[in-house]
Amino acid sequence: MYSVDFVAQHRLYDGILYFIRHDSPATQTPMSVSVFVPDVAEKRTDAPFATLYWLSGLTCSANNFTEKAGAYRKAAERGLVIVAPDTSPRGAVAADDDSGELGQGAGFYVDATQAPWKPNYQMETYITHDLIEAIEANFPSDPKRRGIFGHSMGGHGALTLAMNHPHLYRSVSAFSPIASSSRAPWGQKALAAYLGQDHTAWEPYDAALLLSQGKGLPFDTILIDQGLSDPYLEAHLMPDLLEQAAATAGQKLMMRYHEGYDHSYYFIQSFIDDHISFHAERLG
Amino acid sequence: MYSVDFVAQHRLYDGILYFIRHDSPATQTPMSVSVFVPDVAEKRTDAPFATLYWLSGLTCSANNFTEKAGAYRKAAERGLVIVAPDTSPRGAVAADDDSGELGQGAGFYVDATQAPWKPNYQMETYITHDLIEAIEANFPSDPKRRGIFGHSMGGHGALTLAMNHPHLYRSVSAFSPIASSSRAPWGQKALAAYLGQDHTAWEPYDAALLLSQGKGLPFDTILIDQGLSDPYLEAHLMPDLLEQAAATAGQKLMMRYHEGYDHSYYFIQSFIDDHISFHAERLG
Repeated sequence: MYSVDFVAQHRLYDGILYFIRHDSPATQTPMSVSVFVPDVAEKRTDAPFATLYWLSGLTCSANNFTEKAGAYRKAAERGLVIVAPDTSPRGAVAADDDSGELGQGAGFYVDATQAPWKPNYQMETYITHDLIEAIEANFPSDPKRRGIFGHSMGGHGALTLAMNHPHLYRSVSAFSPIASSSRAPWGQKALAAYLGQDHTAWEPYDAALLLSQGKGLPFDTILIDQGLSDPYLEAHLMPDLLEQAAATAGQKLMMRYHEGYDHSYYFIQSFIDDHISFHAERLG
Repeated sequence: MYSVDFVAQHRLYDGILYFIRHDSPATQTPMSVSVFVPDVAEKRTDAPFATLYWLSGLTCSANNFTEKAGAYRKAAERGLVIVAPDTSPRGAVAADDDSGELGQGAGFYVDATQAPWKPNYQMETYITHDLIEAIEANFPSDPKRRGIFGHSMGGHGALTLAMNHPHLYRSVSAFSPIASSSRAPWGQKALAAYLGQDHTAWEPYDAALLLSQGKGLPFDTILIDQGLSDPYLEAHLMPDLLEQAAATAGQKLMMRYHEGYDHSYYFIQSFIDDHISFHAERLG
């Protein structure tokens, strides 16, 4: 069940970048993923290596991070596998939306309970189960040393999946995350569609709420980078809610604000090395 | 005449990436360009900084290098401006071709003499005159310290423009260049269209031929990186012709072959730091 098709591969730095497709039982679609495997990992088949899962933001496929984040130089140096999945099921899905904020490209890393989304939009189970099974069955990836990070909607995804599945991930960080999906217009639109109008169903998918409940405490520190020229800062991201929640819970949060930087992959690439090192230190 | 429109800008690393448009008298079209300016340059207005011009390959716009090459970390560190222009005029041009090997995206860095290309496809004059004027009138770019480099068709462009205009550029390097456009199918098709069937008109645009004539000698060394898993290696690129020409002329050529690497920007990003450093050392 967890076989993968190898679509393409490129040598880069001291490693290989694979583009794969695999069938997900959760989404009932093929899923496209990029997987970087450093040489140091390939040579040491006796010791699978720490693996970082990257979750992308609205409208992204696996390619945005893979092409633009500049993550692999440091990953090769530190000997980390990096996995970048898609943000939703694609292709023959039962529902879609052309707003860029719902449907394909906008799975929000939740398991939809509502029609017409429920049959395919099962991104929480896809990321936390099917993807991990596929990666660990086919690449030298250590089940005991997983980290997760992401950007914007994917920052929300990384934080909420880490806090809801602390047995799966040992480190978590984010760029410009949607801090509180239940209070942000992007999040409200998606959660209403995928989970329905009962707001209690939204609570497990609100990073700031989870953090205030102490769900971040299995992680010694959470690293977040946020640009101060980000056009979505106040309306959609609201990083101050994470700071308040961390203070409430006594959670150590390394929240870094960066003057002049925006919401783009130019911001991400500027600080990606710090995130790779942050995870490498925690994953050993 | 050399004013530019600032279309967008992003802070990244310790610098700013600008997307500009400016009108080119040579191509009679607006031209799109990205320009990275490191902070160190912006702060020292008394001392304009060394500037690297990147020429892209077939089908590329200014964006491919800008998004995928990973060049700006090292450029910020070394204090270099990097300019990435488009590969052809765009928009309301008198001629085009949908093969991806001619017309828009495939200017080949020559001044066309043949109908219907002549009115707009004047990329040699654009790169060596109009672009330089626009950059140096609007950015802290030192007219005495220019380098040029490029990939594939743009590697051909960098080598031929440097050798034909040694007073303009002090350093030159290339990734996977078309070594001899008059002997490669891509080059033959483009040169026949732009310059006509008389092959003597092609000679100034053949890098290996220029090199064998000693035209590379103003440059102390030429750096070339070539992947050995490049699918275009034998049919279109023929790097051995550059090695033979360099030997004939007594030109120092640092030709590096890399096992497993292909023709993509994943190859370029793997070795871009070496090229930035190569130019920085020569441009001071």
